[in-house]
Amino acid sequence: MIHIEGKPCRLIATEEHYVARELLEATGRIVSAGWQDLDLADTRFFLHDPRGRAWFEPLVDLEEGRLRMMDEAGVDVAILSLMAPGVQFFEPETAASLAVTLNDHLAETIRRHPTRYGGLAVVAPQAPERAAKEIERAMRTLKLNGLVINSHTGGEYLDHPKFWPILEAAEATGAAIYLHPRNPPPNVQRLLEAPDGRPVLGSGIWGFQMETSLHALRLIVCGVFDRFPKLKVVLGHMGEGLPYWLYRLDYMYERGYRKQGTGLAKRLPSEYVRDNFFITISGMNDHRFSQPTLAYCHSIVGPDRILFASDHPFQSTQAAVDVLRNAPFSRQDIEQIAHRNSESVFHMAPA
Amino acid sequence: MIHIEGKPCRLIATEEHYVARELLEATGRIVSAGWQDLDLADTRFFLHDPRGRAWFEPLVDLEEGRLRMMDEAGVDVAILSLMAPGVQFFEPETAASLAVTLNDHLAETIRRHPTRYGGLAVVAPQAPERAAKEIERAMRTLKLNGLVINSHTGGEYLDHPKFWPILEAAEATGAAIYLHPRNPPPNVQRLLEAPDGRPVLGSGIWGFQMETSLHALRLIVCGVFDRFPKLKVVLGHMGEGLPYWLYRLDYMYERGYRKQGTGLAKRLPSEYVRDNFFITISGMNDHRFSQPTLAYCHSIVGPDRILFASDHPFQSTQAAVDVLRNAPFSRQDIEQIAHRNSESVFHMAPA
Repeated sequence: MIHIEGKPCRLIATEEHYVARELLEATGRIVSAGWQDLDLADTRFFLHDPRGRAWFEPLVDLEEGRLRMMDEAGVDVAILSLMAPGVQFFEPETAASLAVTLNDHLAETIRRHPTRYGGLAVVAPQAPERAAKEIERAMRTLKLNGLVINSHTGGEYLDHPKFWPILEAAEATGAAIYLHPRNPPPNVQRLLEAPDGRPVLGSGIWGFQMETSLHALRLIVCGVFDRFPKLKVVLGHMGEGLPYWLYRLDYMYERGYRKQGTGLAKRLPSEYVRDNFFITISGMNDHRFSQPTLAYCHSIVGPDRILFASDHPFQSTQAAVDVLRNAPFSRQDIEQIAHRNSESVFHMAPA
Repeated sequence: MIHIEGKPCRLIATEEHYVARELLEATGRIVSAGWQDLDLADTRFFLHDPRGRAWFEPLVDLEEGRLRMMDEAGVDVAILSLMAPGVQFFEPETAASLAVTLNDHLAETIRRHPTRYGGLAVVAPQAPERAAKEIERAMRTLKLNGLVINSHTGGEYLDHPKFWPILEAAEATGAAIYLHPRNPPPNVQRLLEAPDGRPVLGSGIWGFQMETSLHALRLIVCGVFDRFPKLKVVLGHMGEGLPYWLYRLDYMYERGYRKQGTGLAKRLPSEYVRDNFFITISGMNDHRFSQPTLAYCHSIVGPDRILFASDHPFQSTQAAVDVLRNAPFSRQDIEQIAHRNSESVFHMAPA
């Protein structure tokens, strides 16, 4: 609970990461295989390297430590999601089975703390039909709140027809897809390396936003939202830069594609951004430096499309709360961002 | 000349494209060879396809038509640059010779209209030592105003030590580098295609900004500006998105690199953006939709770092002028953006 203009305001955080024992065991096996990849390097550091211990403990803690941190920061509910790239690393069979187990355990955690946690189901896009079934089970039986998909799977994007069963199930069950970052596919990662091969732009500094903005735009221009018009996609990190580009995207789509008769999407990119996307403030949580960006996003996509998120434990929850508390918006707009939009997008019962 | 609050204000446009006969001949040879590439597709369309005629005529016209258009829009001076990717398509020997010829002819054009045109020299990064010599000749003998480099050359970026002679010459002669977009290298272009192989995100809709933002960030994090602290880089398209990301770039660089002792750059990314970069408003020229983005950039990088540009003939010069005229800034700030910054960055004599 935070207070805005002296009145209490429920606070729901929507990009809050955790790691479960099953994922640790599975990533341990691929880490020890020595494969080189920026995502694997992150996994190795945060989960299997003593230097990552400061992040490891908060990632695995779903009990006292996390709940106390939430209390101190004023977060009422955390919608939990597995650390990226989740199960998307693994062979289809392993990934699909792991997803079922992880979702079961996530639902158990939420049942232990029903007023404090929600959760996003993981699925294995590399096994699309099983993923579609798991979405139905996760939403209808386990009552999870949506999905998290960590961008590409084996270098392929969700606009590919092979993944349509996933999008169809997400739309049918009302499961919003939190399209979380991971690094671009291995053959593109060279762009993120210095000339001597050293990674200099991987993960949160650039690889994540480069990859995830591309993925969101692929969904838009390939016409995915014409086929699945009720599909909802959530982007972290202030929309992965998309709000900045809406005018140019529309101008270039209109002139370069629609007028030439080569456009695959019926509407303009900005129309899909405003109708099918939500953005969260995750990872942009400095209460001074992030204010202009939050205010700019508010002017571009409006308060109905922005959700609170902190990116715990990779960034400070308290700092994210301070961004929202200091935003120069009306109390009503802050309430939208703090909890109302999240309740609607992620099917959370009002407090 | 435009009028701001009733007072005349000189207007210098800094990203104004043209094409010369020599480039037409050289691109005609590679177009007919049938090579597949997004940049080549643009060249084919604009320069060698009857459907591109509406752009072709304004690109080759450096006399009455262009000057009349400038008069009508209120542009006093256009700083001309060769259409991307300029000479960066060609074999090193061809490219280096072509650059010399093109720069000679550009200087002749400016001598015919010394009060109306400035020009950016082209160089062939694929022949670095010859490029360095050509920078000195272009700046000192031809008195051109800076350089244009169209992002990568053969998939390599200017942070590579092989290109340091170019950066050294640019710094020594005070030649600002207009880092203009082109599409990402061919092996990355697959990311910009629909699953059926059709290009859906090439060029101005996304490929350009994805490529150029990456290039600018590579220069920053690889420490190029520690080695060449006076080097000036100009980015079009409202800074190719960089202003949006300054906080996150700094946060991730500090935590992911500098604290780990693995950072190649001494300072934070935002410090280089604010000290070594200028951004132009090219390609973001809708007087309604671009106002929030311009105001946001003004708040992030300040009026001393923003230059006027129109991206002629790919976008409307009149529309770009309307963006600036309607900006909610002080007359002094508009004068900075309209001409003072350009005079300083590109060594233009005041009117």
